[in-house]
Amino acid sequence: MSTAAAAGRIMQRLEQLAALTQDAPRLTRVFLSPEHRAANGLVAGWMREAGMHTSIDALGNVCGRREGDRPGLPAVLLGSHLDTVRDAGRYDGMLGVVTAIECVQALHRPLPFAVEVIGFGDEEGVRFGSTLLGSRAVAGTLDPAVFTARDAQGITLAQALEDFGLDPARWPAAARRRDELLAYIELHIEQGPVLEREAVPVGCVTSINGATRLSVQLLGTAGHAGTVPMDSRHDALAAAAEMVLAVETRCRAEPLLVGTVGRLEVLPGAVNVIPGECGFTIDLRAPADAQRIRAVADVRVALDHIAARRGVSLAVKVLHESRAAPCAPWLMERIEAAIAAQGITPLRLPSGAGHDAMALAALVDVGMIFVRCTGGISHNPAESISVTDAGAGFETLRRLLADLDPAARY
Amino acid sequence: MSTAAAAGRIMQRLEQLAALTQDAPRLTRVFLSPEHRAANGLVAGWMREAGMHTSIDALGNVCGRREGDRPGLPAVLLGSHLDTVRDAGRYDGMLGVVTAIECVQALHRPLPFAVEVIGFGDEEGVRFGSTLLGSRAVAGTLDPAVFTARDAQGITLAQALEDFGLDPARWPAAARRRDELLAYIELHIEQGPVLEREAVPVGCVTSINGATRLSVQLLGTAGHAGTVPMDSRHDALAAAAEMVLAVETRCRAEPLLVGTVGRLEVLPGAVNVIPGECGFTIDLRAPADAQRIRAVADVRVALDHIAARRGVSLAVKVLHESRAAPCAPWLMERIEAAIAAQGITPLRLPSGAGHDAMALAALVDVGMIFVRCTGGISHNPAESISVTDAGAGFETLRRLLADLDPAARY
Repeated sequence: MSTAAAAGRIMQRLEQLAALTQDAPRLTRVFLSPEHRAANGLVAGWMREAGMHTSIDALGNVCGRREGDRPGLPAVLLGSHLDTVRDAGRYDGMLGVVTAIECVQALHRPLPFAVEVIGFGDEEGVRFGSTLLGSRAVAGTLDPAVFTARDAQGITLAQALEDFGLDPARWPAAARRRDELLAYIELHIEQGPVLEREAVPVGCVTSINGATRLSVQLLGTAGHAGTVPMDSRHDALAAAAEMVLAVETRCRAEPLLVGTVGRLEVLPGAVNVIPGECGFTIDLRAPADAQRIRAVADVRVALDHIAARRGVSLAVKVLHESRAAPCAPWLMERIEAAIAAQGITPLRLPSGAGHDAMALAALVDVGMIFVRCTGGISHNPAESISVTDAGAGFETLRRLLADLDPAARY
Repeated sequence: MSTAAAAGRIMQRLEQLAALTQDAPRLTRVFLSPEHRAANGLVAGWMREAGMHTSIDALGNVCGRREGDRPGLPAVLLGSHLDTVRDAGRYDGMLGVVTAIECVQALHRPLPFAVEVIGFGDEEGVRFGSTLLGSRAVAGTLDPAVFTARDAQGITLAQALEDFGLDPARWPAAARRRDELLAYIELHIEQGPVLEREAVPVGCVTSINGATRLSVQLLGTAGHAGTVPMDSRHDALAAAAEMVLAVETRCRAEPLLVGTVGRLEVLPGAVNVIPGECGFTIDLRAPADAQRIRAVADVRVALDHIAARRGVSLAVKVLHESRAAPCAPWLMERIEAAIAAQGITPLRLPSGAGHDAMALAALVDVGMIFVRCTGGISHNPAESISVTDAGAGFETLRRLLADLDPAARY
C-alpha cells in the first residue's frame, strides 16, 4: 500500500471517528461515554485488521499488540487519546492512534520488538476535571483520589467505570511494568504555528514543556477618575498593565520560553473610577525546568518591584506546576533520521501543550512526532491537516519502526 | 452666632437631611421622590428662618430669595444639589445648600445685591440617567427630549414631574434670565485628595474639567498559551497593557491632566489562551479644553502606533465629550481673598468631578469653593468632613458675600 493510500485511509478513519459524537454536528466525545465505547470498538476492529490482539484495560483504554520476531519481547508502545474537548477538531489525539495502526498494518516483516498501540480514554480531562487519566493509569502514576471525583451529573469516576463494564478496584492492573516497554512514541498534530511558519510537514519534539500557573491579586486604591491627581494614584490596573508587559518582556528574552496573561479582571470596573483591584493569571512554560524556574523567579521579582514602586499590595499564588517531560535523545535521533529520509529538513521544537507522552515519561523513554496543522488552530472544529501531511506523519512513524534497533537505546 | 456655632448647625442639618432616605440605614434620595419632597420642605423651612421667600420651580428645585438694599436687584445665586447617588455620603451637594442658607442667616445688613439660594433636585442623574437636570433647566440648556426618558419603573420624567405636583409643560419657566443674576457660587466637598495633601481646609476652584471618554476595542489573535512562540503572537491584552501605560505616561507629563482606564475586559479570558480580544475605556480630563484635546490626540497617536507595531486591529469610539467650565477670574480673586482673610494660604485647584456650576456657567459667571474631605472619598457612606472645615467653608462664603462689590465684576 502506498503512502498516499495509507494517508487516504487515515483521513477516512478520522471521519468515521468524528461521527461518534454526543452533540452532532459538533464533535464531543468524553471519557466512558457510549461514544467512547463505540470508538473503542471501531479502533479495536482496525487493530485486529492490522494483525493485533486487542483488549480493553482496567481504565477503558483500548490496547492492541502484535508480537515481534519471537513472542514476549519488550514492546514499542504507540498511541494517543480518543477523547475530545467539547466542540473539538477531528485530529487532536485520534490522528496518533489511527496512524499507529496504519503503520503496524504496513509493516509486514517481523520486527525485533513487539508493537503495541493504545487509544487512551481520557487525556483532555473534560468529564472529571483531571487530565491524562488513561495514560497516568498506564504509567502507574494515577492518584486514586480521582475515583471519587464527580462529573457534572454527580457520577463518580468509580461509578462511571462500573457503568462502562469495568471493575474500578482493578485499576492498578492498567499500570505497565518498565521492563515490558522499550519506548512510547506519540504522533500528534502540533496545535501551534511553528511547522507551518517553517514550511515543513512534520517535526521532532524535544520536550513537553513544564508549566507554572500563577494567580496574581493587586490591591490599590479606588478613586474618582476626575479628582485624584496622577501622582496620588495607586491604580491597580496600571500596575497590572506594567506586570503584563514584564511577563512578555522576560519571555521574549529567551527562545522557547512562553508566558501568557490570559485572564484579567478589574474592580470596580467603571469608566470613571480608578481601579482599586485587579486580578490576573500568568501561564509560563518552557521545555527545560531550569529555564522555567529562572523565568518565574525573575517575573516574581519584577512584580514585587512594580507593586512596591506603585504602592499597590501584591499577592501571588501558585495555581499549578508541572515539570517538563524531555524526549529521549536516542528516539529524537531516530525520528530525525526518519524525517530526513523523506527529504524533509528535520526540525526540533518543544511541545507547548500537554500530551499523554508527558505521563508515560515517568515510566519509559518517550518520543513525539508533530504534524503540521493549519494556522496552529486546535480545540476547535476548524482544526485541519492536509492529507499529504498525514502521509508524511505516517511515513515518519513507519520508517522509525522499520529501522528501530532496540540495542540503539542509550 | 460664631463660626463654630454655624458649623455645628450645618453638621446637624446635614444629619437631618441624611435621614430622608429611601433605603435606611443607607442614604439614597433620587429626583422627584417622596424623600426629595421632604428635603425640599426641610430646606425651604430653613430658608424662611434665614429671612428668604421660598418657592419650588418648574423642575422641582427649591429656591429662596432675600432682597438686597432695594428690591429687584440682580442676585448672587448660591447653591448645590439635594439628590444623592445610591448609598451616598451626606456632604456631596447638601453641604453647599446648607452652608449657603447659614451664610444668608449670618449676614444681617442689607447687601448691594439680592441673594438667592437654590437646592437642585437632580445633579447625579441616578433616576433618569441624565445628569444636571435641575441646573440645566435653570441655565436654560435642558434638552426637552429628556422628558420622555424613563426611570427603572418605566415612569417618564414628564409623569414624575406631574406626580410631584408640577406641570411639565411649564419647564421653560425654570430658566433664569442672564440679567437677573450677578454670579453663581457653589460650595462643595472636594471629592479628591488635594486639599488634604496640602493641609488646607478650603480651596478655590479654577475650572470644572472638561472630559473625553473613549471606548477602545482591540482584535488580536487568540491562541494556545503553550504552543505559540512569543514572536508569533498578536496578544490583544499585551497591546492593551501598553496602551494603559501610554495613557498614564501622557497624563503624568503635565500637571492637572488626568487619565484613567477604568474598565477592561479580555476575551476569551482563559488562563491557557492568548487573549484574542480586549476592550477598555479611557477617561481623560483637564481644566483647559486645549490641554485635553492635545492629550487625546497624543493618546490616539500612541494607540495607533502600538496597534500597528503589534499587528492588532484597533477601533476607537468617542463615548462622551464635555467642555471645561472655567471659573470667573474676578470671583476666584474674591474667593481667594476670603480664604486669605482667615489666615489660610489660598490654593487654586481644578475640579475633576462635574458640578451644577458646570451647567450654570452657560448662563452666568461661576465660582466654586472646595472643602477638604477625608481621604478624597466620595459617593460612599464613608464620605466625611470635619466640623472645623465646615466652619472654614462657611466663613469663606460668608466673607465673600459680605465683601462682594457688584461693580468689581469684569
